[in-house]
Amino acid sequence: MVDGTTQKDVKCIIRPPSLLPDGVKVGVSLSVNGVWSEGKGKQKYELQLNKSKNKDAKIDIIGGVEDLYPLLKKKHTEQFLRTIPEYRWRQPDAAAILRFRSKVEKSLVNFFDSQDFTKTHPPITTSSDCEGAGEMFKIDAASNNPKEATFFGKETYLTVSTQLHLEVLCAALSRVWTLTPCFRAEKSDTNRHLSEFWMLEAEMAFVNHVSQLTDFSELMIKNVVHKLLSDEDGMGSNLLETASKEDADAMKKRWQMLLQQDKWASITYTQAIKILREAHETGKADFRYKPTWGDSLKSEHEKWLAGKYFKNPVFVTDYPLDQKAFYMKINEPDGYLKDLPPTVACYDMLVPDIGELIGGSVREESYEKLNFEIQRRNMNPKPLDWYLAQRKNGTVPHGGFGMGFERLLQYLACKDNIKDVIAFPRTVNNCLC
Amino acid sequence: MVDGTTQKDVKCIIRPPSLLPDGVKVGVSLSVNGVWSEGKGKQKYELQLNKSKNKDAKIDIIGGVEDLYPLLKKKHTEQFLRTIPEYRWRQPDAAAILRFRSKVEKSLVNFFDSQDFTKTHPPITTSSDCEGAGEMFKIDAASNNPKEATFFGKETYLTVSTQLHLEVLCAALSRVWTLTPCFRAEKSDTNRHLSEFWMLEAEMAFVNHVSQLTDFSELMIKNVVHKLLSDEDGMGSNLLETASKEDADAMKKRWQMLLQQDKWASITYTQAIKILREAHETGKADFRYKPTWGDSLKSEHEKWLAGKYFKNPVFVTDYPLDQKAFYMKINEPDGYLKDLPPTVACYDMLVPDIGELIGGSVREESYEKLNFEIQRRNMNPKPLDWYLAQRKNGTVPHGGFGMGFERLLQYLACKDNIKDVIAFPRTVNNCLC
Repeated sequence: MVDGTTQKDVKCIIRPPSLLPDGVKVGVSLSVNGVWSEGKGKQKYELQLNKSKNKDAKIDIIGGVEDLYPLLKKKHTEQFLRTIPEYRWRQPDAAAILRFRSKVEKSLVNFFDSQDFTKTHPPITTSSDCEGAGEMFKIDAASNNPKEATFFGKETYLTVSTQLHLEVLCAALSRVWTLTPCFRAEKSDTNRHLSEFWMLEAEMAFVNHVSQLTDFSELMIKNVVHKLLSDEDGMGSNLLETASKEDADAMKKRWQMLLQQDKWASITYTQAIKILREAHETGKADFRYKPTWGDSLKSEHEKWLAGKYFKNPVFVTDYPLDQKAFYMKINEPDGYLKDLPPTVACYDMLVPDIGELIGGSVREESYEKLNFEIQRRNMNPKPLDWYLAQRKNGTVPHGGFGMGFERLLQYLACKDNIKDVIAFPRTVNNCLC
Repeated sequence: MVDGTTQKDVKCIIRPPSLLPDGVKVGVSLSVNGVWSEGKGKQKYELQLNKSKNKDAKIDIIGGVEDLYPLLKKKHTEQFLRTIPEYRWRQPDAAAILRFRSKVEKSLVNFFDSQDFTKTHPPITTSSDCEGAGEMFKIDAASNNPKEATFFGKETYLTVSTQLHLEVLCAALSRVWTLTPCFRAEKSDTNRHLSEFWMLEAEMAFVNHVSQLTDFSELMIKNVVHKLLSDEDGMGSNLLETASKEDADAMKKRWQMLLQQDKWASITYTQAIKILREAHETGKADFRYKPTWGDSLKSEHEKWLAGKYFKNPVFVTDYPLDQKAFYMKINEPDGYLKDLPPTVACYDMLVPDIGELIGGSVREESYEKLNFEIQRRNMNPKPLDWYLAQRKNGTVPHGGFGMGFERLLQYLACKDNIKDVIAFPRTVNNCLC
């Protein structure tokens, strides 16, 4: 018996057994009137219903279940649970994930506060495409006649990243962060993509070097893992108790691994390509795509680097300019790269099994350089007027990053599918309720 | 001089004054190399740049400002600041509001955690219209051909309230809450409406009576106000310091007033109508709309009740069924109301100046009664299949409420316009960036 506030079972001792009404089975909700007593068995406390000692002892069914109620006492597959959004979270191991999610969020709120960050709420509705990738959702009032002007008087979209707005707030408040829904109309339905997901984004003034951002990212993740391992708020035991022994062992191993190194490795993209190339050529790894300078790192490369080579998170920095967005700071050419195209001061944090968990960069703060890059890419500068204007006045060096909140949860809880760490997952052709 | 992490000024003593470069004026960003020293004046510490004592002392301009930079040292009107979204938050009193917002959110996160609530993330994208009011935004992939099937394979909208999904999670986790963006395509552009706003919603199992919800709402608000008055995290002083004396006094008076009564008043809608009617007829109040049983309370009525009559928050409960949504629990007929149409177990929390701050209800948990009400209202039950299904299995009495987060901030910070407590306000024809 559970009351929903924790996933721990309450043992209920019933004397005489005839107190138990007909129809009590998995899923019913009950009102129980008993005496909270010290337990005689494994559990410290139990609920005793003893009619001879307490004439008010009774059990009533508040909500019965139909014969076809889909949840049974056995463990259901996650695939099956996803088809019943109205019931799936009643399963204790599923509920444990939502409790975990809540505790991780709380720990991040207090972490960022302790680091002098202001939590902000950039808009969801926007007229700018931050990433320039075009995979956006368009919105309008449902009642609007499509032939007339839209509700907002212009084309508006759901945000794909709040970064541009966050940069405005960063210039005012110095250190800002947000945890906010973001939307991508990607048609790929993988085990690590959602069309609607929560993104943690942070932006900091006076950042000149990628290492300031990678150091901070490491601090942030390790802070959560510390709380997991020290079981603050029951964050760790909560997950471990409802998991199979195998899953619990995998989680514990992962959390310990994350704290093993004083400092996670950081390599440049160019070094990453060299390592991958060598592994590919010597047969240490068998990649579908040959690692080539200038190409993006494929998911197989990312997973191999973190999972097989470093066996831990690794930061990959300084990717080629042409792979990245217009707002990233271009690196000064150095000797090492003199024959290669320019790179930018950015990084991805790669983790075993998942690949990219965090992506960030130092931002270009010069109006002239931003404008040049926008022109070079043939982007329409008009929707970015407001963004560019602020760089003409009191601009500062700054940088930041974004982390898919569900990816973090998926990684820490060792879940195969990202759909199992969000209450109502949305993907292409999938908006069940 | 400020560094953005707080709004407190840093005093900078420059010897010789020629160290100050040309072009230093309001809005420039500077790099300053000085010695942090005990202050000689009002401030405890100051930054001393004394070339004769420290040869590294220097000031450089990192980001200059153009002649047309719109922010000056003087106080700007909020109306003017709203027209420059890229700069407005650099104004110290504006920034103070964002810091306040962050601290209030943190305090709520920790409050709900201490009350055994799980913070959840119901979906933004949905195929159900929770309120049945129809003022929704429709979404689709921007790249989608309008003649083809939509991205999600059906009509999808931005949520107007996450309540229905929250009820599903409540049945699994007992006490749940969320703070999430909600969207209403309302064309009214008032000083207390936004098309995109953040809503705090909570849902609790085993709730049978409205008083459980009003008690909890009062506890929640008073918890925030306690922190304001005790200045935890600088929550109170932060706002007071940047405000005019008049505004600061108004805020302090409001916060104190909120804690003055042990328990805020609670009256039924029927009693409210009686009070309003009497005031209207005796000339104590001069309403545009005559208060009439069966009509909704108008904003003028709400503000008068809280502002003039109770001079404090007041809960108004048990509104007529026909004004409210299908999911609210219908009150058993009682003698007092025997000649009037049915009422529902709901409440609004009204506060001076603003009117409705919170709205909530006990929810109907019986499948049969919900279904009957949906039929009676000629609603299409199809999109609510999932919502109704859960009431057939293990249903429990429950209830909850929603509070506009910006309304709370507007009220506590005594702001005339709700657009001044959200970073990038969205209203009809207004999506500046």
